Amino acid sequence: MSIASASQRIPEKVFRDPVHDYVYVQHQLILDLINTKEMQRLRRIKQLGASIFTFHGAEHSRFSHSLGVYEITRRIVDKFYRSYPSQEPGDGLWDDKERIVVLCAALLHDIGHGPFSHTFEKIFATDHEALTQAIITSPETEVNQVLRQVSPEFPEMIDSVINKTYPNPQVVQLISSQIDADRMDYLVRDSYFTGTNYGNFDLTRILRVMHPYKDGIVFDYAGMHAVEDYVTSRYQMYMQIYFHPVSRGMEMILNRLMQRAADLYQDDSIYFDPQSPFLIPFFEKNWTLNDYLNLDDGVLQCYFAQWLVQNPDAILSDLADRFLNRKPFKSVTFDKEKDQANLAKLLTLIEELGYDTHYYTALNSSFDLPYDFYRPNAEKPRTQIELLEKDGTMVELSQASSLVQAFTGKPRGDQRIYFPNELYYGKNHDHISLFEPLLDNIHDMTRTGKLRALD
Amino acid sequence: MSIASASQRIPEKVFRDPVHDYVYVQHQLILDLINTKEMQRLRRIKQLGASIFTFHGAEHSRFSHSLGVYEITRRIVDKFYRSYPSQEPGDGLWDDKERIVVLCAALLHDIGHGPFSHTFEKIFATDHEALTQAIITSPETEVNQVLRQVSPEFPEMIDSVINKTYPNPQVVQLISSQIDADRMDYLVRDSYFTGTNYGNFDLTRILRVMHPYKDGIVFDYAGMHAVEDYVTSRYQMYMQIYFHPVSRGMEMILNRLMQRAADLYQDDSIYFDPQSPFLIPFFEKNWTLNDYLNLDDGVLQCYFAQWLVQNPDAILSDLADRFLNRKPFKSVTFDKEKDQANLAKLLTLIEELGYDTHYYTALNSSFDLPYDFYRPNAEKPRTQIELLEKDGTMVELSQASSLVQAFTGKPRGDQRIYFPNELYYGKNHDHISLFEPLLDNIHDMTRTGKLRALD
Amino acid sequence: MSIASASQRIPEKVFRDPVHDYVYVQHQLILDLINTKEMQRLRRIKQLGASIFTFHGAEHSRFSHSLGVYEITRRIVDKFYRSYPSQEPGDGLWDDKERIVVLCAALLHDIGHGPFSHTFEKIFATDHEALTQAIITSPETEVNQVLRQVSPEFPEMIDSVINKTYPNPQVVQLISSQIDADRMDYLVRDSYFTGTNYGNFDLTRILRVMHPYKDGIVFDYAGMHAVEDYVTSRYQMYMQIYFHPVSRGMEMILNRLMQRAADLYQDDSIYFDPQSPFLIPFFEKNWTLNDYLNLDDGVLQCYFAQWLVQNPDAILSDLADRFLNRKPFKSVTFDKEKDQANLAKLLTLIEELGYDTHYYTALNSSFDLPYDFYRPNAEKPRTQIELLEKDGTMVELSQASSLVQAFTGKPRGDQRIYFPNELYYGKNHDHISLFEPLLDNIHDMTRTGKLRALD
Amino acid sequence: MSIASASQRIPEKVFRDPVHDYVYVQHQLILDLINTKEMQRLRRIKQLGASIFTFHGAEHSRFSHSLGVYEITRRIVDKFYRSYPSQEPGDGLWDDKERIVVLCAALLHDIGHGPFSHTFEKIFATDHEALTQAIITSPETEVNQVLRQVSPEFPEMIDSVINKTYPNPQVVQLISSQIDADRMDYLVRDSYFTGTNYGNFDLTRILRVMHPYKDGIVFDYAGMHAVEDYVTSRYQMYMQIYFHPVSRGMEMILNRLMQRAADLYQDDSIYFDPQSPFLIPFFEKNWTLNDYLNLDDGVLQCYFAQWLVQNPDAILSDLADRFLNRKPFKSVTFDKEKDQANLAKLLTLIEELGYDTHYYTALNSSFDLPYDFYRPNAEKPRTQIELLEKDGTMVELSQASSLVQAFTGKPRGDQRIYFPNELYYGKNHDHISLFEPLLDNIHDMTRTGKLRALD
Repeated sequence: MSIASASQRIPEKVFRDPVHDYVYVQHQLILDLINTKEMQRLRRIKQLGASIFTFHGAEHSRFSHSLGVYEITRRIVDKFYRSYPSQEPGDGLWDDKERIVVLCAALLHDIGHGPFSHTFEKIFATDHEALTQAIITSPETEVNQVLRQVSPEFPEMIDSVINKTYPNPQVVQLISSQIDADRMDYLVRDSYFTGTNYGNFDLTRILRVMHPYKDGIVFDYAGMHAVEDYVTSRYQMYMQIYFHPVSRGMEMILNRLMQRAADLYQDDSIYFDPQSPFLIPFFEKNWTLNDYLNLDDGVLQCYFAQWLVQNPDAILSDLADRFLNRKPFKSVTFDKEKDQANLAKLLTLIEELGYDTHYYTALNSSFDLPYDFYRPNAEKPRTQIELLEKDGTMVELSQASSLVQAFTGKPRGDQRIYFPNELYYGKNHDHISLFEPLLDNIHDMTRTGKLRALD
Repeated sequence: MSIASASQRIPEKVFRDPVHDYVYVQHQLILDLINTKEMQRLRRIKQLGASIFTFHGAEHSRFSHSLGVYEITRRIVDKFYRSYPSQEPGDGLWDDKERIVVLCAALLHDIGHGPFSHTFEKIFATDHEALTQAIITSPETEVNQVLRQVSPEFPEMIDSVINKTYPNPQVVQLISSQIDADRMDYLVRDSYFTGTNYGNFDLTRILRVMHPYKDGIVFDYAGMHAVEDYVTSRYQMYMQIYFHPVSRGMEMILNRLMQRAADLYQDDSIYFDPQSPFLIPFFEKNWTLNDYLNLDDGVLQCYFAQWLVQNPDAILSDLADRFLNRKPFKSVTFDKEKDQANLAKLLTLIEELGYDTHYYTALNSSFDLPYDFYRPNAEKPRTQIELLEKDGTMVELSQASSLVQAFTGKPRGDQRIYFPNELYYGKNHDHISLFEPLLDNIHDMTRTGKLRALD
Repeated sequence: MSIASASQRIPEKVFRDPVHDYVYVQHQLILDLINTKEMQRLRRIKQLGASIFTFHGAEHSRFSHSLGVYEITRRIVDKFYRSYPSQEPGDGLWDDKERIVVLCAALLHDIGHGPFSHTFEKIFATDHEALTQAIITSPETEVNQVLRQVSPEFPEMIDSVINKTYPNPQVVQLISSQIDADRMDYLVRDSYFTGTNYGNFDLTRILRVMHPYKDGIVFDYAGMHAVEDYVTSRYQMYMQIYFHPVSRGMEMILNRLMQRAADLYQDDSIYFDPQSPFLIPFFEKNWTLNDYLNLDDGVLQCYFAQWLVQNPDAILSDLADRFLNRKPFKSVTFDKEKDQANLAKLLTLIEELGYDTHYYTALNSSFDLPYDFYRPNAEKPRTQIELLEKDGTMVELSQASSLVQAFTGKPRGDQRIYFPNELYYGKNHDHISLFEPLLDNIHDMTRTGKLRALD
Repeated sequence: MSIASASQRIPEKVFRDPVHDYVYVQHQLILDLINTKEMQRLRRIKQLGASIFTFHGAEHSRFSHSLGVYEITRRIVDKFYRSYPSQEPGDGLWDDKERIVVLCAALLHDIGHGPFSHTFEKIFATDHEALTQAIITSPETEVNQVLRQVSPEFPEMIDSVINKTYPNPQVVQLISSQIDADRMDYLVRDSYFTGTNYGNFDLTRILRVMHPYKDGIVFDYAGMHAVEDYVTSRYQMYMQIYFHPVSRGMEMILNRLMQRAADLYQDDSIYFDPQSPFLIPFFEKNWTLNDYLNLDDGVLQCYFAQWLVQNPDAILSDLADRFLNRKPFKSVTFDKEKDQANLAKLLTLIEELGYDTHYYTALNSSFDLPYDFYRPNAEKPRTQIELLEKDGTMVELSQASSLVQAFTGKPRGDQRIYFPNELYYGKNHDHISLFEPLLDNIHDMTRTGKLRALD
């Protein structure tokens, strides 16, 4: 085959999508990629992880999201091709030979994600970006085999788009930039499934005001307010959905549960072998790509459930129970600079109540979460959002919009300390009344939602 | 406690729901039930099972649906209480003492469902209705413990609502009738998540035209068209979503996969023990309620994945691969009376190609699926939909609506024979070209979508 | 110019549309047509006339609807062009030279509508279809001048599409058939603006399963349920929205008001001249196309308001008051065959109360309203809905769908007698208590909603 | 009657509303108010005036909006009554005796609006706020008659709520504050009908986090992001919808048209009498409340149409043509300080082309438009948005939200000079080629969208 023949259209296939109505597939290559086992595996990995414990509707998978990113990219490319077709190399317009390249990259951009990625990566030192690369470029995967049919270099081309080293900046920015197809899909999709409206910016208008340009993608100045709306949607989704304190309370439990399992395995592998076979390579820190591809949400939850029922370790069982049966850690915010003594005091109180604070408390800073806001002055100036005025001059977005300027360069979020929920409401639980003075103290320090000194 | 104290309102808690905007919880008892591990387990069981393989958005869980049924019931009861409050016993109006009873029943009506219920039940002889009863009435469950706090008989009261033996027919019909809160929620919810509009009847209008009545629930004659619309929505959802041939093609694979596992276990349990611990009791046909509660979608899929990688049985691995990696059986319709010879011929051809037809073909009649259409003249006339005219007379719906009459008493659906997808497109697959004449024959018999005689 | 040059694309212009998101204009000719005064005049004519008095949101104009019909047609044609482009004349596929023709026809199909067409036509013997033709073909209109720029025959071509005499049946059926762009737009649009969901069929799926065909437009058999859904939507919209008894109660007042004005003018034109200048030609039965184009909803309502304040005729003022201030006639259904005596009796009672029954009562049969249901066996068999099976055979829809068969050939609707609202609730109005026995009788005859004999 | 008896509930009546699904009417008094001719008149006055020329869907009336404000208020009051019922006078909680008062005020708050208010007021010195007061308190209106049935002082009570002098600040702020029921309805309603999503903030969440408080209404601190979202929606709607340059281009024509009529009448009333009877009192500057109530959109448009056809004044006819047939003035922005010379130059050029710049140009500053952004530090500090923290302290919104701070105290909008559209594209119009050099100059000064000096 070749890029030219891979670009041939087939009779359109569709996927009914609640967010985009239909996802249109027009190339055999795309259909073949969707049917690989690596893509199908994304059906078994939830897009938002622990957020379902706060927003019960948000049970959608990374598979749905991947189709959505593909579809948004397809629509943009259709528009570019209709309105700004390149006439000659280097004219800064859209070269439709890139179509099949960018569509593959869009579809595959998240292929390396695993179950509860953000937490899993911290404990087991996996890296979903490196794994995305591996899945695309390793000859053992079905994805690679499908891509290689185009040409031997095609997998590396797709990988380079995702890695941002591909020479055409338009292609790169469609997949990775401050306002790319990936973010556009997840904002509207996560809005739809959570049932909130915050991420619901004016997608059709954004698509209308996008242009290909010599150095990438720009936006009509006339569309500035639609871009502002998008930036605000991102902000709202992070503040209200992605950083929700209760979801993070579940994520902290997951983190502690995995950590406990990893620690226990070091002591004695009998706890986990042979009943958690797919995790052993990770406990052993000696895993292959195939091992990684065996994992999904269901596998982890199955093992948690088995641990809950069968594992003799009380802490492991208890944490598995908290996770499976939704008993989130409670939290209060704190100030990293001023609250060191208060943090120490709180941990002491919790320890005195008999909890192993290593597994039963956690500090979480939402700034550390691997999502990011719009930040135009970062190290890579190419991904600034640029507005194109009628007379051809460019304006960087925050220079034009004082609303966006309010967001610019200022990280948002908070820092929280997490601890078992029962400590907060402890006084109502008769069975722990013995410790009442300690609970009183914890209550005093946390009752306003912000950590404060004990009176 | 008592029903009266359980009926006390607490400060409202809400769950953000994409279908009903908010689910409002106003009683501690409801909140405690939601927090039981049996309810939380429903988060890990998809509402539509294999339908996600056709409608990728429909990844919502039975937990979401259960909250939705609760919320619709709550809204109906609020309306009944506001508009038709009982003044004295036996006046046929709404007695608000029933509120907490019907809300508990609404929330718990599906608590006995397990993973891929319809298929699992066939292979392992479980019964989700009996299990619902068991979960409510067995002292070992958290659900039962929460309910028992109201009174020792309260669990049985709730069970009797779900079993339709509760004395107040209004309460029973809100949960189980031709137009109950259960169906109302799943039609709109499944519509929302599939991204189709077929189930999207006029819920608010239906709620407005419902009345409590001596013998149950009736509808204003003026609302007849809204009820017609609901009946049509049900029909459309069954025809277009629930009976989709491709989803059934995945369900058939699941059925064959579980059957193969059950058969293999009889031969030699070493295949499954100890790596599929939660399934052993079912293979042994000796399971407890706790065993049942250990199961969920993730557990089964985890075991399937382990079988795919580790199990030496080729058929089991292959079927696990087809299920996990979405390789649905292909199908054609047939006529049970006329096509017996054709069926036999087709099976012979498939067998000659080396397939064990016991595991690689399946007949599926959608009439057998445990959903049902509106059928007013069934054995239980109480669940007819009755319209109340201005002068107080009642008319049974199909007498008033010729549209509904078109549906009445006529089962819809089809019968299909399922077989491996590769046989249908076989001629394009070089590696099986040896068998070409056989494949030609299969192709001839199936290419119109209806089984037909070989020329 | 020529059809070829009129078919040249211009940089896309868009209209933001709440139903279709955007309406895309890609030809200068279409833009010029939209900007004619005849099209702009449709902004001042409501799509649903008196229905706004029942559904206050349904205030949208025929202008919006015309853009919508254009846009649906454009999307169908795009799909036809992409999927079924004609290779040679007579191959039954889509000939894209027809694009500009069908788009013009779609945009202009309702151009001849006037204010409250259905009522106005009855009193003043205008005919919106003839007027559509006149506006397109008369050299004095801007529409004609724009069309003529393409070629001298172009206006007649467009007219022949709307009149169904154009040679290409695909073009004709896109604009006028049982499932055309006109109906598709008004069902979804009227649903959107009334705030009901009944007309909200699966438009995108319908567009997907449409095909051009030698004799017109057909639908994939696989899309049968989507077509059923459309037919049901039509039925529901007629039953619940278009035939709503209260809207018709306002329409009856409008009818009587215009009739009274026409009758009065015959007696003495001084009542109306010079203050209602735009109506004089119609009173005189001697009007030109320009006279017709002067009329719109605002003009009529302005004159009604002036009559209310200034006209010495008590009946005219009173009817104007009832119309402007929303005092609909009340109605009951009756049986044309059995209720003749009851009708006579009721009219006598109303007359005895001092009402001129010529202006204060009205019979309305909704079967007479100029909308129609799906009727596949009508005199024009070309407009049957045909389903195309995989093997190439055609099935007429009602043969395939028992649901549609329930609608087939059976007119729906009812007959009602309308009378002043105050007679129904009369007993509560003290100032007419003198007539109480008569009111008692009227109340008895009408209180069940169906006309019945006086006891 | 009395407030107590007016507060009695009646069997619920509903209005189907596309924005709020249903509007629920539960008091006879509200129903009677809706049925007054002054309320019904609002059906004939569009909510957004000239915006329909840009957003063709936005044809909704002030009647729809008034019902919407009523409904939002009703929902807030229901929530207040359920969650924060006053126990004793002065406790700062919700006193449900205020319910009927605030509902009447909500329904009637816009009753004094006339056709194209903002423009009409400028030319004819009417004042919709004073007229609202007059309609409520003048004994001749039906509204007043209905209100007076409650008590002689009741009309003044309602008026004082709208005038912000009513003693209970909660009642006042529900109707008039930075985040009141009026604005909440128009943002979501105008979004719905324009088909944009900008005004679509999280209404249900806002309602959830509102509290009555001693000095008015406050919001839970936890709901800060929902309030931010609302403020951003307001900003977006003003920037993108209400201040749209093309809508203002139509408004400028309307302004010039009315001014021309007023000026002409001073010269010679024969132009308008007797064919524009309802406008004469305004030309005469001697009008009554009844005269005002005779006006609506249709009346003005009818007169414009008559002027277009019959009036001998060329400027009046031409401006009427531009308005009725949508020929908006074109505009460019300018800087009030720096562009004085440029403005003068441009006006000179236009005059040299033969236009009377008094009627054919206009300066428009959107800051002058009678909508306003959130401005917490204005002269009335009570209407600041206050957030209530868990420990009972209050924070003013912009102190808590840097996003809102970006908006605070900074007027947004622009200044534009408007001129005939044909001058902008003049060079393409052959018939004015004589003036080409002048047109060239105009083109040069305006082609970037910002006024600039002639080279």
